[in-house]
Amino acid sequence: FQSKLPTVATSIFSVMSGLAYQENAINLSQGFPDFESDKNLIDLVNNAMLTGKNQYAPMPGIFSLRRSIAEKMENLYSVSYSPETEITITAGATQAIFTIIAATIKKDDEVLIFKPAYDSYEPTIELFGGKTIAVQLNPEDFKIDWQLVKSLITEKTKMLIINTPHNPSGRILTKEDMLQLEAILKDTNILLLSDEVYEHIIFDGEEHQSALLFPGLKERTFITASFGKTFHNTGWKVGYCLAPKELMVEFRKVHQFNVFSVNHPTQVALAEYLKTPSNYLELGNFYQQKRDLFLNLIKDSRFEFIPSKGTYFQLLNFRNITIESDYDFAIRLTKEQKIASIPISVFNENNLDTKVLRFCFAKKDETLKKAAEILCNI
Amino acid sequence: FQSKLPTVATSIFSVMSGLAYQENAINLSQGFPDFESDKNLIDLVNNAMLTGKNQYAPMPGIFSLRRSIAEKMENLYSVSYSPETEITITAGATQAIFTIIAATIKKDDEVLIFKPAYDSYEPTIELFGGKTIAVQLNPEDFKIDWQLVKSLITEKTKMLIINTPHNPSGRILTKEDMLQLEAILKDTNILLLSDEVYEHIIFDGEEHQSALLFPGLKERTFITASFGKTFHNTGWKVGYCLAPKELMVEFRKVHQFNVFSVNHPTQVALAEYLKTPSNYLELGNFYQQKRDLFLNLIKDSRFEFIPSKGTYFQLLNFRNITIESDYDFAIRLTKEQKIASIPISVFNENNLDTKVLRFCFAKKDETLKKAAEILCNI
Ligand SMILES: CSCCC(=O)C(=O)O
Ligand SMILES: CSCCC(=O)C(=O)O
Repeated sequence: FQSKLPTVATSIFSVMSGLAYQENAINLSQGFPDFESDKNLIDLVNNAMLTGKNQYAPMPGIFSLRRSIAEKMENLYSVSYSPETEITITAGATQAIFTIIAATIKKDDEVLIFKPAYDSYEPTIELFGGKTIAVQLNPEDFKIDWQLVKSLITEKTKMLIINTPHNPSGRILTKEDMLQLEAILKDTNILLLSDEVYEHIIFDGEEHQSALLFPGLKERTFITASFGKTFHNTGWKVGYCLAPKELMVEFRKVHQFNVFSVNHPTQVALAEYLKTPSNYLELGNFYQQKRDLFLNLIKDSRFEFIPSKGTYFQLLNFRNITIESDYDFAIRLTKEQKIASIPISVFNENNLDTKVLRFCFAKKDETLKKAAEILCNI
Repeated sequence: FQSKLPTVATSIFSVMSGLAYQENAINLSQGFPDFESDKNLIDLVNNAMLTGKNQYAPMPGIFSLRRSIAEKMENLYSVSYSPETEITITAGATQAIFTIIAATIKKDDEVLIFKPAYDSYEPTIELFGGKTIAVQLNPEDFKIDWQLVKSLITEKTKMLIINTPHNPSGRILTKEDMLQLEAILKDTNILLLSDEVYEHIIFDGEEHQSALLFPGLKERTFITASFGKTFHNTGWKVGYCLAPKELMVEFRKVHQFNVFSVNHPTQVALAEYLKTPSNYLELGNFYQQKRDLFLNLIKDSRFEFIPSKGTYFQLLNFRNITIESDYDFAIRLTKEQKIASIPISVFNENNLDTKVLRFCFAKKDETLKKAAEILCNI
């Protein structure tokens, strides 16, 4: 059998979480919390199951959840999305990303992405015959050079993918960034995929600059979001996609034949839970404390860092420690020191090795303390 | 925006269930039960959530569920599948089907399917640039003419899709059918997708002829199965895919970037629940009683039928009632008579209208009685 994706290997998240499990290491690799989701939310799911919400949800998601999302968007950003036609519930944000690309990218279409990038974008683009145009970001500040972006746009450019707050770097896009992007895309038909799964995890009083706040972007943008990241249950696999009606029609054409619909009882629970804004508004502070605790504990280690501005990831530079590749070092740390991280070369263009590992700090304080103790001894 | 799928409309299941809801009609259209899933299974899910199974499951599914499936296959069919490399948990069987096609079908590949066919096959093939070669089955007995199949195979034939027990007709493939298929595929590289989501719903003492029982098929076959159909919780969206290791490697390459992984607490519950064979072995009798009840109640109606041999669907021919199209008649029955069904022309080649509607009998006896009363008055 001749593979359609001969160069694609197992996702780094599977590799590192698998190794962490096998080695009984502290797992700061794949992005998920090691503390529990709110018991009230679990009870809402159980209640939904006990009251008969166990058959197919409607294909775009249950209406009450779509309405709760629309209300959240209205309250947070004063922006309207129609629950009927512009919001679809997905089996996680990754499925939304896959379906967006499936619905829009044809052979030879160019898609511009920024590296380091989440590892699903590029193989998904390739699967649909598209061509990835990758812009490698400066590994110091991960700032986007918009002049360069403009120069890379061709007649074949079909889509740009942005991600803010940015996984893995923790960099956030500023209002100025978004205005520049808006100016570049004005008068083009280029689509935007804005991956905003960490929208509520932003620190130091900064504000999330969602693409939906910029009218010249909103009209061409698919936004992806994740309940798993926001409510500490990445294993439930529920997220959503927002897009203008015309684009959402295309999204749903694929969605209905991909997963058709999403776990029903969980949707019922989320519809209710989302009505209490404090359930997500406090997330930034919550994770900022974790970041600060973690960084404070490792400030005297040999790792170098610039504090993450958002997401629940922190990059640590190990150039003072070893000349090993980030991949080898990550594997060795997992096996020998019993701490797992993600080598960010896997997200970089041509696997550029910047001697940086990504650590997830969505962990109990006690886990962060244990991890820091190990890191300080390296 | 230029659509990639200009001819694709909203799935008939969304259309009819939506209309049934709106019209407050008895919904015998989309295939799902109106009775409850076992409370013990619900409790197992709740218990999994309360004991911290809320973060990402491993990408191919949790090992204990894959092992339970392997054990089931061994016990039922005396056939081995490796939980490590040959079983992957999916967000329902539809997602498995989509991912199989995504992982295997390239531009200009031909895929042979039999109509009437589940509505996801053809648009998914089209999305990946493949060409559907549709064989319209005889609407009386839905038998496959294997000589015709053989004559349609070309150098471009990449895959065949079969479905037994067959949705919508209730026809089952016999051992003779499978042997003929095995002979045809022998000495070719053609893949088989065997959609067996109704494997346990088979009547009148017949035996399910799974593709995995035929060595010349098993080595080239992706099998899809559904826990939702088997355990009465179609809204949980968990199914699985079986395939030989070499093919499963390709499946997982796509799966990891499509949904990555599947709802975790549900998997924990299913792993346990699957260990009790009576949970699925009694399904055939259970649904046979429903079929018999339903058919007995409508035997004096003006509808004609041949009893379904498997699945939870029954076709009813209405040629004695009206010359309307099946689509118009299905819409009118929903609006005026408050009973929803599926017009099977949507599954046929060129929407061939055979004056047949599909009714789902996975319903409480009381629902079937109400439905029969309506049907007897038409
Ligand atoms: C789908 S597993 C990846 C989780 C995640 O978002 C990350 O670790 O970057
Ligand atoms: C995914 S909705 C379709 C349910 C079903 O299998 C059917 O009604 O045929």
